[in-house]
Amino acid sequence: MKSKNNYFKVASYEAKVGEVKKILLLYSGGLDTSVMLKWIKDHYKAEVIALTLDLGQQHDDLEAVKQKALKLGALKAITLDVKDEFANEYLAKGIKANASYQGDYHLSTPIGRAILAKKAVEVATKEKADAVAHGCTGKGNDQVRIEGYILSLNPKMKIVAPVREWAMDRNEEIKYAKKNGIAVPASLDFPYSVDDNMWGMTWEGGEIEDPSVISPVEKFLTTYNLAKNAPDKEEFVKLDFVSGIPTKLNGKKMGLSQLILKLNMIAGKHGVGVVHMFEDRLVGVKNGGVYELPAAHVIVKAHQALERYVCTRQLNELKAQMDIKWGYLCYGALWYDPVMKAINAFNDFVNQKVTGQVRVKLYKGVATVVTLNSPFGLDHSSFTNEEGYDFNVNAASGFIEIYSLQMKLSNQAQTKKPSA
Amino acid sequence: MKSKNNYFKVASYEAKVGEVKKILLLYSGGLDTSVMLKWIKDHYKAEVIALTLDLGQQHDDLEAVKQKALKLGALKAITLDVKDEFANEYLAKGIKANASYQGDYHLSTPIGRAILAKKAVEVATKEKADAVAHGCTGKGNDQVRIEGYILSLNPKMKIVAPVREWAMDRNEEIKYAKKNGIAVPASLDFPYSVDDNMWGMTWEGGEIEDPSVISPVEKFLTTYNLAKNAPDKEEFVKLDFVSGIPTKLNGKKMGLSQLILKLNMIAGKHGVGVVHMFEDRLVGVKNGGVYELPAAHVIVKAHQALERYVCTRQLNELKAQMDIKWGYLCYGALWYDPVMKAINAFNDFVNQKVTGQVRVKLYKGVATVVTLNSPFGLDHSSFTNEEGYDFNVNAASGFIEIYSLQMKLSNQAQTKKPSA
Amino acid sequence: MKSKNNYFKVASYEAKVGEVKKILLLYSGGLDTSVMLKWIKDHYKAEVIALTLDLGQQHDDLEAVKQKALKLGALKAITLDVKDEFANEYLAKGIKANASYQGDYHLSTPIGRAILAKKAVEVATKEKADAVAHGCTGKGNDQVRIEGYILSLNPKMKIVAPVREWAMDRNEEIKYAKKNGIAVPASLDFPYSVDDNMWGMTWEGGEIEDPSVISPVEKFLTTYNLAKNAPDKEEFVKLDFVSGIPTKLNGKKMGLSQLILKLNMIAGKHGVGVVHMFEDRLVGVKNGGVYELPAAHVIVKAHQALERYVCTRQLNELKAQMDIKWGYLCYGALWYDPVMKAINAFNDFVNQKVTGQVRVKLYKGVATVVTLNSPFGLDHSSFTNEEGYDFNVNAASGFIEIYSLQMKLSNQAQTKKPSA
Amino acid sequence: MKSKNNYFKVASYEAKVGEVKKILLLYSGGLDTSVMLKWIKDHYKAEVIALTLDLGQQHDDLEAVKQKALKLGALKAITLDVKDEFANEYLAKGIKANASYQGDYHLSTPIGRAILAKKAVEVATKEKADAVAHGCTGKGNDQVRIEGYILSLNPKMKIVAPVREWAMDRNEEIKYAKKNGIAVPASLDFPYSVDDNMWGMTWEGGEIEDPSVISPVEKFLTTYNLAKNAPDKEEFVKLDFVSGIPTKLNGKKMGLSQLILKLNMIAGKHGVGVVHMFEDRLVGVKNGGVYELPAAHVIVKAHQALERYVCTRQLNELKAQMDIKWGYLCYGALWYDPVMKAINAFNDFVNQKVTGQVRVKLYKGVATVVTLNSPFGLDHSSFTNEEGYDFNVNAASGFIEIYSLQMKLSNQAQTKKPSA
Repeated sequence: MKSKNNYFKVASYEAKVGEVKKILLLYSGGLDTSVMLKWIKDHYKAEVIALTLDLGQQHDDLEAVKQKALKLGALKAITLDVKDEFANEYLAKGIKANASYQGDYHLSTPIGRAILAKKAVEVATKEKADAVAHGCTGKGNDQVRIEGYILSLNPKMKIVAPVREWAMDRNEEIKYAKKNGIAVPASLDFPYSVDDNMWGMTWEGGEIEDPSVISPVEKFLTTYNLAKNAPDKEEFVKLDFVSGIPTKLNGKKMGLSQLILKLNMIAGKHGVGVVHMFEDRLVGVKNGGVYELPAAHVIVKAHQALERYVCTRQLNELKAQMDIKWGYLCYGALWYDPVMKAINAFNDFVNQKVTGQVRVKLYKGVATVVTLNSPFGLDHSSFTNEEGYDFNVNAASGFIEIYSLQMKLSNQAQTKKPSA
Repeated sequence: MKSKNNYFKVASYEAKVGEVKKILLLYSGGLDTSVMLKWIKDHYKAEVIALTLDLGQQHDDLEAVKQKALKLGALKAITLDVKDEFANEYLAKGIKANASYQGDYHLSTPIGRAILAKKAVEVATKEKADAVAHGCTGKGNDQVRIEGYILSLNPKMKIVAPVREWAMDRNEEIKYAKKNGIAVPASLDFPYSVDDNMWGMTWEGGEIEDPSVISPVEKFLTTYNLAKNAPDKEEFVKLDFVSGIPTKLNGKKMGLSQLILKLNMIAGKHGVGVVHMFEDRLVGVKNGGVYELPAAHVIVKAHQALERYVCTRQLNELKAQMDIKWGYLCYGALWYDPVMKAINAFNDFVNQKVTGQVRVKLYKGVATVVTLNSPFGLDHSSFTNEEGYDFNVNAASGFIEIYSLQMKLSNQAQTKKPSA
Repeated sequence: MKSKNNYFKVASYEAKVGEVKKILLLYSGGLDTSVMLKWIKDHYKAEVIALTLDLGQQHDDLEAVKQKALKLGALKAITLDVKDEFANEYLAKGIKANASYQGDYHLSTPIGRAILAKKAVEVATKEKADAVAHGCTGKGNDQVRIEGYILSLNPKMKIVAPVREWAMDRNEEIKYAKKNGIAVPASLDFPYSVDDNMWGMTWEGGEIEDPSVISPVEKFLTTYNLAKNAPDKEEFVKLDFVSGIPTKLNGKKMGLSQLILKLNMIAGKHGVGVVHMFEDRLVGVKNGGVYELPAAHVIVKAHQALERYVCTRQLNELKAQMDIKWGYLCYGALWYDPVMKAINAFNDFVNQKVTGQVRVKLYKGVATVVTLNSPFGLDHSSFTNEEGYDFNVNAASGFIEIYSLQMKLSNQAQTKKPSA
Repeated sequence: MKSKNNYFKVASYEAKVGEVKKILLLYSGGLDTSVMLKWIKDHYKAEVIALTLDLGQQHDDLEAVKQKALKLGALKAITLDVKDEFANEYLAKGIKANASYQGDYHLSTPIGRAILAKKAVEVATKEKADAVAHGCTGKGNDQVRIEGYILSLNPKMKIVAPVREWAMDRNEEIKYAKKNGIAVPASLDFPYSVDDNMWGMTWEGGEIEDPSVISPVEKFLTTYNLAKNAPDKEEFVKLDFVSGIPTKLNGKKMGLSQLILKLNMIAGKHGVGVVHMFEDRLVGVKNGGVYELPAAHVIVKAHQALERYVCTRQLNELKAQMDIKWGYLCYGALWYDPVMKAINAFNDFVNQKVTGQVRVKLYKGVATVVTLNSPFGLDHSSFTNEEGYDFNVNAASGFIEIYSLQMKLSNQAQTKKPSA
């Protein structure tokens, strides 16, 4: 199997054959990256180290993944449990930003890519690898995120992106796998691919991509219930937040990653957080995706309501605008750009007062915030018994007269004729 | 029953006793405005004309309302069917703006106030009334909207706001009503008030106001089903949009007001569009409200998805920001300010291409957009067979190198030391 | 001289006669506040303490102001030198925000009001005063700032705003002054008023208010040169910034307040920073003002250029938007609202890298940034010799193809016909 | 002279040798495009048509340019006078947007590129050319604009970008020119390049690119005066605007292109509109540039002041944000993206009332707006004699109480302790 040649390697950071000796492969254990492991070893005549992260994904047996990599010829296979770092250093920023993109997609994959690139650079540096290889396609967002982040963290690192480079279609890939003793999934007519971490699963491929077809979610949504299979009885969950981050689930204190994993089970049972969208990819194409984000959805809804309760109207309007910006930037592969870090600083300030308790009702696919309690709630009524806080009805007409003054003048000016 | 005196009339537009001879009362037929009709007639020694609009509200028997006004001493009682004007001139602007405030409140009351003020000025002018009276409280948004809009449309109009002026509490009001032969509702322990038009119902009062209490929606949601009473079978509706406005429901062409009224029945049956929020009022207080907005919710969700499908990513980001702004301005009593008119012009342009068909699934309180079709859809895959539209995978690394350049430089610059 | 009566005191925080025993007057030494000192003492039958801040204003002899207050019957006259606190805690935030409103007004008065209110509350608390009196008019911004800030810092404080309350016009005020032995300015036909601190002077009144008349700046601009009197020889100043704040002037290290005062002299000589604007006041009116802001203008221009040099394009666009917002909020009396504090946190992050040297040319009313040096400058050319930073021309067409993709699709989609 | 080979043509729209038969070259008459004319003719073995636009640039003798093209072997040389179309269809949009980028660069080159691409597609279509060639470098913005716009207007057009393709440095280019009888500029040590149209000139190259060096503007600013050579006497110009567009200069009615050309002479004499910036290019690099934009600067300043005078404060804030966005998008090669068209629709609405007269003072490099007159001016004082427009001082405290309420609550809430 020949590669397209180096001529297509227009980016200065793309590894040329002969230039790299040890490649760190971001390895999932699936068909693509398994084929890749073998292919880059042969094609680049380089040693391959496989790296797999535990981000709280549900399907993977990480020990089996590791053994598979070694069996395929990896010099070394490294698995890292980064669940806590992922939750505390990455998802926490997302929670404070009410992480959402073009609706209710809570950015599970884009946030996951930020830590993946970080760990890739750390491990590559430690292992003295001179390139990082990944399995992303040439038509998607993830190549931009992973390559851009790796280069930002270490501009001298080389990148290998076999999917952009080789000429294999699906059938050739399977042929290649079989020839090289790589296990091929039993069901080849399952056209859906998934990216999975504790914050959510992203399903793509097949009919999902066609906006005019109802997505057959029953075929691939495996982990959590669909709304139609959800219990007939509603369930309430109680989340305690401290400075923007949930710290207790139903009154029980736990770390963020543990809380997310537990809440995934509870909310998933009610079919909450399943989203089908047709979204703008960063690279100019629109694309359908189905997301399963039970915990993410409940946490974002609860956080948003609590945050709104403790902030002024002026701040709530600006925060809503900033959240949209954050979502576009995060999706748009700019996690390590100072623009996102500056918004994170803004969010950190706002979240200092996002402390309190939120109850959420789960029922047939919907999460509804039903109560809010906070020592910082700007609930006017709670102030009425203290001196100086009664709402003064007499002030209203004065407010109205001044507040409406320019609108009034503007409508009047409109009736005048321009001078000749 | 004495009024507080004129001293509290700080606004220059507030009518003083003796200053006005004929008052147009915005009359709903309820207890408050019925008491008001009698009270302002006596207090201001002025003739009263009652005006009631048909905005597609469900509860009201407008003929009965009219007779009631006359019986209470109105010189004249006018009812106007403005359903089409409301839908075509007001709600259409809201649809193009994906009208939402602080979440999924689709601004039914704020939009309704804009046409109410407009009609008030028209009728007052025609009837030679020198003041308009309304029943809004002194702690809410509606006084700002109604008074601000009336003054913008006719700066010489005087305003009478009896609730701000008189000193009656609920009990006194009922006593006053009984004394004056005004019908009092049977159930006095129903503390909830409602504002109603075809775009939605706003419920306030009682426990709704307390953020720490689960709102007993079963007590007052009368028109539509709750999700828990919804059918077990999902239902699909099909909406055709032309230039941003829905023109067909399930393939049948109909006017916008008719479409909204029909869709209210269908979506309401599935418990869709019931929202409980704790929102920022314009006058500085936070307030709980429960909204029933079945058709509004389905239309906004469908419109939003279709619009996103036909717009570029750059435009989708800006439009999302503008929609937030529009929501704050509309809620914030600035309908007739040029700032909203300018955003409407922006929205009109964007919506020229929001043409196509959307299917929405209704199930247990959720409306989910399941398919999109549009001749203007920027669906890259639909272009692949035409020359010049294939996605070029070879271009990706060039894009990435340039797109990530400043992020890379910025992270590298960060490691440098400032010169001494 | 009688006051209008209490009926006009609609705000719950406005002091009623008899209600307050000791009033802290924000005293400038001018005619208005001198008349006020006497008037509130008599009218409220209360003791008066005069407070005057040294904010670096140029005209005032603070010792004389103090003696004048005592002579007029003040129980106590307090002057506080807060120049350093003003520069380091207030103006520093403005510098990081490139403080500007509707053009080149650098917000000297609005920022000054924030510290004035803070000190008023501190002193009133210490002196056990139960009210604060100020000399602001009822048509301006400053009443909103001072009253709003005082109430935010101490909601129980009462406010006395004599100009809103009394019925004196200019002539009556002078008569009252003469009758009470208060010194009256020699030239009574000088209709201009000024607010002054180290960050700038605000001139209002007379022809300045009329947008159709060229403002006779020669009549009142006393401190600094006009451009037409500036030296014929250009002058260069060198500013060193550390984390957003200027720390050296022409190579000499000095505190911020000292640097501003010095730079005022240098830049003022060249007529830099004189601005005539017709701006939107917060209370719905437009108003002409002339500003003298030499140091402020040079610092903001230099800061802006240096900041832009160290930030990415993405951040520069967002920062420019945030700066506009900051300017409207600061002008709009929201210094102590969390919305401004959150933006300040954003700005603090951005400014961590705003370190370096800027040279500015001063000539005939213009300040031009002519050179920039920074260890954090994202100057691509400075990276070319290091590995991995050469600009790769081959990447450009790949970037263009993907960057332009949606614009291309959108124009093509436009030519399609909507389906019937 | 060999080209780098086709392997670097990663974009699908880049012409391959043998693929194109007739190439339309965007020809300026300078060294680069003259060399190019010869080179592409030989290299692509294709016919070349030269196209040159008259956009009001000052230096060019278009007839001489035409003859030069023919002499170099062009099949045809076309010159088009598009001054009026440029002014009325392109610059007019810029004026309504107060066209500015990262300060006072009024976007002369980016706007010029939009019409250049449009005309290129029109002429190429008419002349049956299958490719367009341009002389832009691979490191700049213009390649993105020209290629992106051409593809948006005709996705099947092929592009030839010789500077990206060939391997000539400056010396080789000159050698090639001499060998082929192409005139070479006398002074080879003039490292500055210029782009020129009626809206402004862009100078780049040499020391201009180095942010740490004072740009030697005396060496290349040829057309207009420097401030230091400007007359000692100030001059006033009067501009009349109708719906946002200047229609009279000093009382004399004239077309927009004529007005701009005349105003360039007047304002240029005073050294107005010379800007030195260090800006963010779209492709990730920062770059120094010096601009001469006399008329543009005066018109934008005048327009901005008049617009602010007729709009409400709410609209002024939003418009300022939109103008920043417009500037980034226009600079960012998105003229034909619907996002810009939608903002233009917004601007068209706003500008309906931007009618009136502005006087501007020109003196030593500064343009100062000194008076404003408009029938739509929201000048409160002009309304005082009409009923209902007096500013009501009594309303102020009511406004303040309500306006400051949340800020007050927020500061108070802050002092509370979070519950355990």
